[in-house]
Amino acid sequence: MFNNAPWAPLVATGITIVLILVIAFLLRNLAHRLITRVVNRAASGGSITSRFRKGAPPDGIDVLLHERRKQRAETMGSVLKYIASIVILGTAVLTVLDRLTIPIAPVLTSVGILGVAIGFGAQELVKDFIAGLFMLLEDQYGVGDVIDAGAAVGTVEAVTLRVTRLRDADGRVWYVRNGTITRVGNESQGWSRAYVDVPVSYDADVVTVKVLLEHVAEEMWADPELRESKMVEPPQVYGVEQLSNSALVFRVTVKTLPAAQADVARELRLRVKAAMDAAGVAMVAIA
Amino acid sequence: MFNNAPWAPLVATGITIVLILVIAFLLRNLAHRLITRVVNRAASGGSITSRFRKGAPPDGIDVLLHERRKQRAETMGSVLKYIASIVILGTAVLTVLDRLTIPIAPVLTSVGILGVAIGFGAQELVKDFIAGLFMLLEDQYGVGDVIDAGAAVGTVEAVTLRVTRLRDADGRVWYVRNGTITRVGNESQGWSRAYVDVPVSYDADVVTVKVLLEHVAEEMWADPELRESKMVEPPQVYGVEQLSNSALVFRVTVKTLPAAQADVARELRLRVKAAMDAAGVAMVAIA
Amino acid sequence: MFNNAPWAPLVATGITIVLILVIAFLLRNLAHRLITRVVNRAASGGSITSRFRKGAPPDGIDVLLHERRKQRAETMGSVLKYIASIVILGTAVLTVLDRLTIPIAPVLTSVGILGVAIGFGAQELVKDFIAGLFMLLEDQYGVGDVIDAGAAVGTVEAVTLRVTRLRDADGRVWYVRNGTITRVGNESQGWSRAYVDVPVSYDADVVTVKVLLEHVAEEMWADPELRESKMVEPPQVYGVEQLSNSALVFRVTVKTLPAAQADVARELRLRVKAAMDAAGVAMVAIA
Amino acid sequence: MFNNAPWAPLVATGITIVLILVIAFLLRNLAHRLITRVVNRAASGGSITSRFRKGAPPDGIDVLLHERRKQRAETMGSVLKYIASIVILGTAVLTVLDRLTIPIAPVLTSVGILGVAIGFGAQELVKDFIAGLFMLLEDQYGVGDVIDAGAAVGTVEAVTLRVTRLRDADGRVWYVRNGTITRVGNESQGWSRAYVDVPVSYDADVVTVKVLLEHVAEEMWADPELRESKMVEPPQVYGVEQLSNSALVFRVTVKTLPAAQADVARELRLRVKAAMDAAGVAMVAIA
Amino acid sequence: MFNNAPWAPLVATGITIVLILVIAFLLRNLAHRLITRVVNRAASGGSITSRFRKGAPPDGIDVLLHERRKQRAETMGSVLKYIASIVILGTAVLTVLDRLTIPIAPVLTSVGILGVAIGFGAQELVKDFIAGLFMLLEDQYGVGDVIDAGAAVGTVEAVTLRVTRLRDADGRVWYVRNGTITRVGNESQGWSRAYVDVPVSYDADVVTVKVLLEHVAEEMWADPELRESKMVEPPQVYGVEQLSNSALVFRVTVKTLPAAQADVARELRLRVKAAMDAAGVAMVAIA
Amino acid sequence: MFNNAPWAPLVATGITIVLILVIAFLLRNLAHRLITRVVNRAASGGSITSRFRKGAPPDGIDVLLHERRKQRAETMGSVLKYIASIVILGTAVLTVLDRLTIPIAPVLTSVGILGVAIGFGAQELVKDFIAGLFMLLEDQYGVGDVIDAGAAVGTVEAVTLRVTRLRDADGRVWYVRNGTITRVGNESQGWSRAYVDVPVSYDADVVTVKVLLEHVAEEMWADPELRESKMVEPPQVYGVEQLSNSALVFRVTVKTLPAAQADVARELRLRVKAAMDAAGVAMVAIA
Amino acid sequence: MFNNAPWAPLVATGITIVLILVIAFLLRNLAHRLITRVVNRAASGGSITSRFRKGAPPDGIDVLLHERRKQRAETMGSVLKYIASIVILGTAVLTVLDRLTIPIAPVLTSVGILGVAIGFGAQELVKDFIAGLFMLLEDQYGVGDVIDAGAAVGTVEAVTLRVTRLRDADGRVWYVRNGTITRVGNESQGWSRAYVDVPVSYDADVVTVKVLLEHVAEEMWADPELRESKMVEPPQVYGVEQLSNSALVFRVTVKTLPAAQADVARELRLRVKAAMDAAGVAMVAIA
Repeated sequence: MFNNAPWAPLVATGITIVLILVIAFLLRNLAHRLITRVVNRAASGGSITSRFRKGAPPDGIDVLLHERRKQRAETMGSVLKYIASIVILGTAVLTVLDRLTIPIAPVLTSVGILGVAIGFGAQELVKDFIAGLFMLLEDQYGVGDVIDAGAAVGTVEAVTLRVTRLRDADGRVWYVRNGTITRVGNESQGWSRAYVDVPVSYDADVVTVKVLLEHVAEEMWADPELRESKMVEPPQVYGVEQLSNSALVFRVTVKTLPAAQADVARELRLRVKAAMDAAGVAMVAIA
Repeated sequence: MFNNAPWAPLVATGITIVLILVIAFLLRNLAHRLITRVVNRAASGGSITSRFRKGAPPDGIDVLLHERRKQRAETMGSVLKYIASIVILGTAVLTVLDRLTIPIAPVLTSVGILGVAIGFGAQELVKDFIAGLFMLLEDQYGVGDVIDAGAAVGTVEAVTLRVTRLRDADGRVWYVRNGTITRVGNESQGWSRAYVDVPVSYDADVVTVKVLLEHVAEEMWADPELRESKMVEPPQVYGVEQLSNSALVFRVTVKTLPAAQADVARELRLRVKAAMDAAGVAMVAIA
Repeated sequence: MFNNAPWAPLVATGITIVLILVIAFLLRNLAHRLITRVVNRAASGGSITSRFRKGAPPDGIDVLLHERRKQRAETMGSVLKYIASIVILGTAVLTVLDRLTIPIAPVLTSVGILGVAIGFGAQELVKDFIAGLFMLLEDQYGVGDVIDAGAAVGTVEAVTLRVTRLRDADGRVWYVRNGTITRVGNESQGWSRAYVDVPVSYDADVVTVKVLLEHVAEEMWADPELRESKMVEPPQVYGVEQLSNSALVFRVTVKTLPAAQADVARELRLRVKAAMDAAGVAMVAIA
Repeated sequence: MFNNAPWAPLVATGITIVLILVIAFLLRNLAHRLITRVVNRAASGGSITSRFRKGAPPDGIDVLLHERRKQRAETMGSVLKYIASIVILGTAVLTVLDRLTIPIAPVLTSVGILGVAIGFGAQELVKDFIAGLFMLLEDQYGVGDVIDAGAAVGTVEAVTLRVTRLRDADGRVWYVRNGTITRVGNESQGWSRAYVDVPVSYDADVVTVKVLLEHVAEEMWADPELRESKMVEPPQVYGVEQLSNSALVFRVTVKTLPAAQADVARELRLRVKAAMDAAGVAMVAIA
Repeated sequence: MFNNAPWAPLVATGITIVLILVIAFLLRNLAHRLITRVVNRAASGGSITSRFRKGAPPDGIDVLLHERRKQRAETMGSVLKYIASIVILGTAVLTVLDRLTIPIAPVLTSVGILGVAIGFGAQELVKDFIAGLFMLLEDQYGVGDVIDAGAAVGTVEAVTLRVTRLRDADGRVWYVRNGTITRVGNESQGWSRAYVDVPVSYDADVVTVKVLLEHVAEEMWADPELRESKMVEPPQVYGVEQLSNSALVFRVTVKTLPAAQADVARELRLRVKAAMDAAGVAMVAIA
Repeated sequence: MFNNAPWAPLVATGITIVLILVIAFLLRNLAHRLITRVVNRAASGGSITSRFRKGAPPDGIDVLLHERRKQRAETMGSVLKYIASIVILGTAVLTVLDRLTIPIAPVLTSVGILGVAIGFGAQELVKDFIAGLFMLLEDQYGVGDVIDAGAAVGTVEAVTLRVTRLRDADGRVWYVRNGTITRVGNESQGWSRAYVDVPVSYDADVVTVKVLLEHVAEEMWADPELRESKMVEPPQVYGVEQLSNSALVFRVTVKTLPAAQADVARELRLRVKAAMDAAGVAMVAIA
Repeated sequence: MFNNAPWAPLVATGITIVLILVIAFLLRNLAHRLITRVVNRAASGGSITSRFRKGAPPDGIDVLLHERRKQRAETMGSVLKYIASIVILGTAVLTVLDRLTIPIAPVLTSVGILGVAIGFGAQELVKDFIAGLFMLLEDQYGVGDVIDAGAAVGTVEAVTLRVTRLRDADGRVWYVRNGTITRVGNESQGWSRAYVDVPVSYDADVVTVKVLLEHVAEEMWADPELRESKMVEPPQVYGVEQLSNSALVFRVTVKTLPAAQADVARELRLRVKAAMDAAGVAMVAIA
C-alpha cells in the first residue's frame, strides 16, 4: 500500500537527503577531532627533534620550542581540517544531487578534464605541500635555525607549507620551495665542530710541532670565557692529517656550541700563529 | 493525470534548464565574491613579505608597496574569476545539452582526446602559471627588486603569471619562466653585507694588522656621509679567516643598506690599501 | 499521431543533423572572430615588449616593429583558427555519425589507442608549440635580435612555432627547439654595458690610477663620434673591484647602445693602455 | 512489412559493411592525396632553409638541393601514407567486425593492455620519429653538411626518421637518435668565420701592432687564390680583445666560405707569425 | 513462497552485510598474523646483514643487534598491519554501502579525482616509504653506523620510514629522504682499510725505501696496544704505486677495525716520517 | 523455425569458436610470413651499413658480414614471431572465453592492474628491447667492432636485444643496457684518422719546420709495409694549428685503416722526433 | 524443462565454480613447469657468460660456477612461481566471487585506487626487481667478482633481486639498487691489462729507451713465478704514446690474469726504475 503511494519516492528521497547530510556532518566532526588529537600528540613531544632536544640542558630554548610546537600543531591542524571538510562535504553534495536525479556526470567530467589538465602541472605544488607537512611534523628545523637547504644556506626566517624563507650571510633573502629540498642540514642542533689545519714544511720536527699544538689547545681550554660561552670539549690535536703535498698538515679540532665554530676557529688560528712565531716554527702554504 | 500529459516532459525539461542556468549564475557570483575577498585579504597585509617590510622605517616605499599590492590583487582576482566562470558555465552548458537529449559524449570524447594529447605538453605551462600565482600571492619580489632567479640575476622589470622579466648588469633582458625558478634570492630586502678579504704574508704580525684594520673600520663608520646613505652597522674585523695558503687572510665585513654592498666594499678596499701602505704592511696574493 | 508515423524518426534525425551542422558552423565562425580579436589586441601594443619599446626615441625601428607585430598576429591567428576548426567540425562529424546510428566507438578507440601511444612521444612537440606560441605573444624576441637561448647565442634569423633559428658569431646556423628554451636573454633591448678591468700592481698608487682612468673616461665621452653612435652615458670608474690576487683591479664601465659594447670596450682598452703608458704606470697580469 | 522480414537484418548488415569499406577506401585515397600535396609543397621551396639558400649565387649546389628535396618529399610521403592507411583500414575492419556482431572488445583490450605496456617504453621511439619528421620537413641539414648534434660533431652521412649518421674528424661513425638532438648547429650554411688571436706582451706598442696586422689582412685579401676559393669578406682587425692576462691580445677575423675557416686561420697564423718576426715584435703566451 | 515475501530482500541484505563484516574481520586477522610471521622471520636472522654479522666474533654488539632487530620488526609490523586494516575494512564498508543501495559512485569519484590529483605529488612520499621499508628489512644500516648516503656522510642518529637522520663530522644534523638514497656505503661493517702514500724523489733508491717501510710496518704490528684495539691485519707495503709525477709514490695499507682507519693512518704517517728522517731519505711533494 | 530451436545457440557458439580459432591460426601464419619477409629483406642489404660497406674493396670481411647478417635476421625474426603469436592467440582465447559466456572481465582487470603496476617499472626494459631491435635492424655495430657506447668504450663481444657486452682496453667486461645508449660511435667502419701535434718554440722558423714535417710525411708514405697494412692516404701537414700558448703547434694527420690510428701515430711520433733531433729543432712543452 | 527448474542456476553456478578452480590449478601447475624448464635451461649454459667462461681452461672455477648457476636458477624459479600463483589464483577467486553474484567492483576499485596511488611510488621498486632478474638471468656477475657498478666499485658480497652488496677497497660496504645500475664493468672475466707509462725527457734517445724497455719486458716474462701465477702474455712496449708535454712518454703493457694487473704493474715499475737507473736514463715528471 505505502510503497505505491505517489508521494512515496519524494518522501524517501527527502529522508535520504537529510540522512546523507547528517552523516556528512558527523563524519566531518569526527575527522576534525581525529586530526586535532593526532596533531596534538605530534606537537607534545612525539616528533624526533623535540625528543632529541630534551637531552640538552634546560634553558630558555625550551619555552621557545614549546611555543614553536604549539604554533606548528595549529597550522597543520587547520590545513588538515580544511581538506577533510572539502572531501566529506563535496561527496555529500554530489550524493544529494544524484538523489535528486540531477545528473552529476557533466559536472564530474568537466571538473575531471580540468583536473587532469591541471593535475600534471600542479604536482609540484602538491609535492611542496606534502614535503612541508612532513618537515613540520618531523620538526626538521624552525625559525632561527641555520640550515643548509641545498639551494641556499642561511638562517630560517619563516616556514610555510609551500616555501621556506632563509636569509644568507650576504643578507640575501631566499625563498626555497619545500619540495625541492631533498636533504636538509641543520647547524643549530647540539654542537658544531671547528677544524684548523696547520701546515709545516717537511723539514719540521713532528714531535715539536705536536707538543706545541697541544700546549695551545690546553691554554685555550683554560680560558674561562671561551670555555663557558663557546666550547663544549677541550680542543684535540689529531696529528699528521696529510703527508703528500708540500707540507705536513697537522689538524686541531674543537667541539663548540652550535654556530660558534667560526669564532673559535679564528681564535685558534691567531693563537697557533702566535705560538709558532714564538717557537720559531715556520708555516708554509699547503697547495 | 498531470504526469501523463504529452507536454509534461517538455515543461519539466524547460523548468530544469532554467533552474540550471539560474543556479549556475548564482554559483558564479558566489565564486567571484569569494575570490575577491580572499585576494583582498592577501593584498592587505596577509602576505609574508609585507609583514616583514612593515618592520622597516616608514618611508616612500610604503606607498609603493601599497600600490604594488593593489595591482597584484587585481591581477590575480581577474585570473581566478576567469577560471571560475569557465568551469561553472561550461558545466551548466553541458548539463543543459544533456537535458535536451543532445548527446554530449562526442563533444567530451573529442575534447578529452585533444585534452590529454595537449595536457602532457601543456603541463609546463600550467606549472608556470601556478608558480607565478604563488609567487605573486607570497610577494616574493616585485618590480625594482634585484633578484637571483638561478637562470639569471638582475633587476625585475616585469612580473606576469608566466614569466618574470629581468635586466642584468650587462643590459641583457632575461625572460625567465616562473615554473623554472625553484628558489629565488631577493637582494633588496632589509640589508646586505659587504666582505673584504685582506691578505698579508705569513711574516706579518697579526696583532698589528688587526689593530690597523679596526682603525680603518672606525674611521669609516665615523664618516657621516657613508654612515647615513649606505651603512647599517659599523664594520667588523673578523680576524684570521684563512691560514692555509700563501697568506694570512683577514676578513672585514660591513652590514649595508640593500644593494649598497659593492660601493661600500670598494670604498673599504681603497681605505685599507691606503692604511696598509701608510703602515708599511705589504699585501700579498692569496692564490 | 505524429510520433508514431514510420518516417517520423527519419525526419527527426534529418532535422537534428542539419541543426548540428548549422550550429557547428556558427560556433566555428564565432571562434574565428574571437581569435582575430584577441590576436589583434595582443599585436596592437598589448604585449610587454612593445610597451617597453615605445619609451625609446621614435625611429625606423618603430615601422619595423609594427610590421613584425602584424606578421606575428597573422601567424598566430591562422594557427589558432586551424585548431578551432578541427575541434568544432570533428565534434560535429562525430555527432552526425552517432545520430545516423553509425557506431563511432571503433573510430574513437582506434584513434584513442594510437593517440595515447603517440601522445607520450609527441608531448615534446606540443611543448615546443606552446612555448613558441607564448614567446610570440609576449614578443620576447624577433628576427634581427641577438639572443642567448642557452643552447646557442647568436642573431635570430627566423622564429617559427616549433624552432628558433640563430646564426652565431662563427657563422654556424643553430636550430633550437622552443620548448628547450627555459630562459632567453635578449641583448638588443634598450642598452648594453661594457666592462673593462684594469689590473695594476700592488705598488701602484691608487689615487693616481683613479684620476688617470677618470681622465680617459672624460676624453672618451668628449669624442662626438663615439658619443653619438655608440654610448648612452659617460663612462664610469668604479674603483678597486678586486684586492685579493696579484693585482689591484680597477673597473671602468660604459652604458652603450645595444650590441655596441664590444666595440666600445676595445676602444676603451686602447685608450687606457695608451694613457697608462704615457703616465708610466705598469699593468700586470691578474691571474 | 519490409522491416519485419527475417532476412532484413542480414541485408541491412551487408549493405552497411559494403558502405563502410567503400568509405574507408575513399578516405584513404583522400588522405594519400592530401599528404602528397602537403609534402610536395614543403619540398618545392616551402621550407625555411631552401628559401634561405635561394639567396646564394646559383651553382651546382642548386641541382643537388633540388634532388635532396625530392628524395625527402618521397621519404616523408610514403611514411605518412603508411600511417594513414593503417588508421583508416584498421578502423574499417573493427567496424565491420562490430557489425557482424563479432565482439571486438577482447581484441581491443588485448591490444590496449599491450599497447599501454609498450607505449611507455616506446615513447622514446615515437619522439625520435617525430623529431626526425620535423627535421626533414624543416630541412635543418642534409647529407654532406657538417653539423654539431651535441652528442657528436661531424659530416652527415645519412638521415633517417630515427637516427642521423655522422662521421667525425677521427673517422668514427656516430649514430645519433633524432629525439636526443635538442639543438643542431649547421656549419655548412652561407658562411663561416675564422678567428686568430695574436698575443703580444704589455711592452708592445699597440699602434704598431695594429698597423702590422692590418697590413697582413690587406695582403691576404689581395691574394687572388685565397679570395676566390675561400674568403667572403676581407679580414678585419678587431683591436685589443683582452687586456687582463699576461698579454695584450689582438683579434683578427675573416668571413670565409662554409667549412673553410680552419684552412684560412692556419694561413693567417703563418702570415702573422712571419710579419711579426720581420717587424721584430715578440709574441707571448696568453695563459 | 519465501522468495516473494516482501521482507525477503531486507533479510537477505542483512545477512549479506553481516557476512561481509565477518569475512572482513577474519581477513584482517589473517593478514595481521601473516605480517607478524613474515616480519619476525625477517628479524630473526633472515636479513642479509644479520647473517653477515654472525660471522664476526661474538661480543656486546650481538646483544645490541638483537635489540635493534626486534625494534625494527615491531616498527615494520605495525605499519604493515595499519595498511592491511585500511584496505580490508575500506572495501568492506564500500560493499556494505553498495548492498544498502547507497550509491558509492560519488564517493569513489570524489576520492578518485582527489586521489589522482594528489597521487602525482605524493609519489615521492610513497617512494620514500618503500625505500625505507626495504632498507629496514635488509638492515642496510642502523643507529650508530657511519654511512655515506650520497647527500651527506655521518653517523646515523635515527632511521624512520621516510627519512634517515645523520650527524656529520662538523656537527651538522642531516635529514635525508630515504627515496633519494640510491646507494648507501656503510663504513661500520667488519673492517676498514687505511692508505698512506709516501712520496720520494726519483733519485731515491727504491729497495732502501721499501725495506725502510716494511720495517715501520713490522714495528707497528708489534705494538700490542695498536694491534689489539685498532688493527685487524699487519700493515702491507704495496710497492711503487705511481711512477709518473714528480715523485715515486710508495703505498702502505693497513686493515683496521671499522672507523679506526683515520687514527691508524695518522699514527703510520708519524712513524714513517720519523723513520725517513732517521734514514736521511727526503720526502717530496706529489703534485 | 530454425532460430528458435533450443540447441541453436549451442551450435552457433560452436561454429563461432571453431571459426575464431581457424582465423587466429591463419592470422598467426600470415604474421609469421610477413615477419620472415621483412627481416630477410633487412638482412639482405636493406640496412644502411651494409650498403655503406659494399663500397669497400671486397675481402674476407664480406663473408663475415653475410654471416652476421643472417644470424641477426634469425634472432629478430624469432623474437617478432614470438610477440605476434602471443597477441593473436591471446586474443583468440579471450574471444572464445567470451563466447562461452565465461566472464573475462576479472581476468582482464586482474591482469590490467598488475600490468599497469609493472608497466611503470618495466618501461626501461621495453625501452632496452626497442633500442636493441633497431640497433640490430640498422646494423649499427656487430661483434668485433670497437665502439664508444658512452658508458664504456671497447670491443663488442656480444649483442643481445637487451644489453651489449663490450671488453675495454683494460680487460674489463662491460654490460651496457641498449636503452641507455643514446649515441654510438663505431670506430671500425671505413677508416680512422691519426693526429700528431708537434710543438716548437716561438723562436722556431715556421718554414723550416713545415718542410721538415712534410719530408717525414713523404718518407712514411714511401714505406711499403706501413702503406699497405695501415695507411689509406699519405700523411698531411696541416700547418700552424695553435698560436696562442707557449708554443707554435704544427699538426700532422694520417688517414689509416680502422683501428690502426694509434700504431701509426706512435710510428709518426718516433719519426718526427728523430727528424727534429737530426735537424736541431727543439720541441717544447705545450701546456 | 530443465532450464526452468528453480535449482538449475544454483547447480550451474556450482559446476562453473568447480570448473574455474580446477582450471586455475591446472594453469598454475602448467606455469610452474614452464618456469622450471626455462630457468633450468638458462642455468645449464644458456646464459651468455657461462658460454664465454667455458672457453677458459677448466679448473676449480667450473665447479664454483656450476654451483652458482644452480642457486641462481632456484632463486629465480621460486620468485617467478610466486608471481604466477598470485596472478592465476587471484583471478580465479575474483571469478568465483563474480559467479556468486558477490559484487567485486568495490574490491577492485578500492585496490585499484590504492594501486595507482602506490604504483607511481613503487615503480622504482619494480625497476629494481626487473633489473635484478635480468642481471641474474644473464649472469652479469656473481659473488666474488670485482665490479664497477657506477655508484661504487668493489667485490660483490651478495646479489639479491633488489640490491647488490659490494665491499670496496676501503672496507666500506655498499648497497646499490639494481635499477640504478645502467652499466656494469666486470673485472674478473678472462684477463686484465696493466699499463705503465715511462716518462723520459725530450733529450733522451728514443731508440736506447725502447731497447731498454724491451729488455725489461723480456726479463719479466722469463721470470717463471710471475709468468705462471700472474701473466697471460709477454709484456709489450708500445712506443712513444705522448709527445706533447714536458716528456716523451713510453708505454709498456702486460695482459694479466683477472685482478692481477695492479701487482704486475708495481713489479714492472720497480724493474723499469732499476733498469733506467742502471743505464743512467733520467725519468722526468709528466705533468
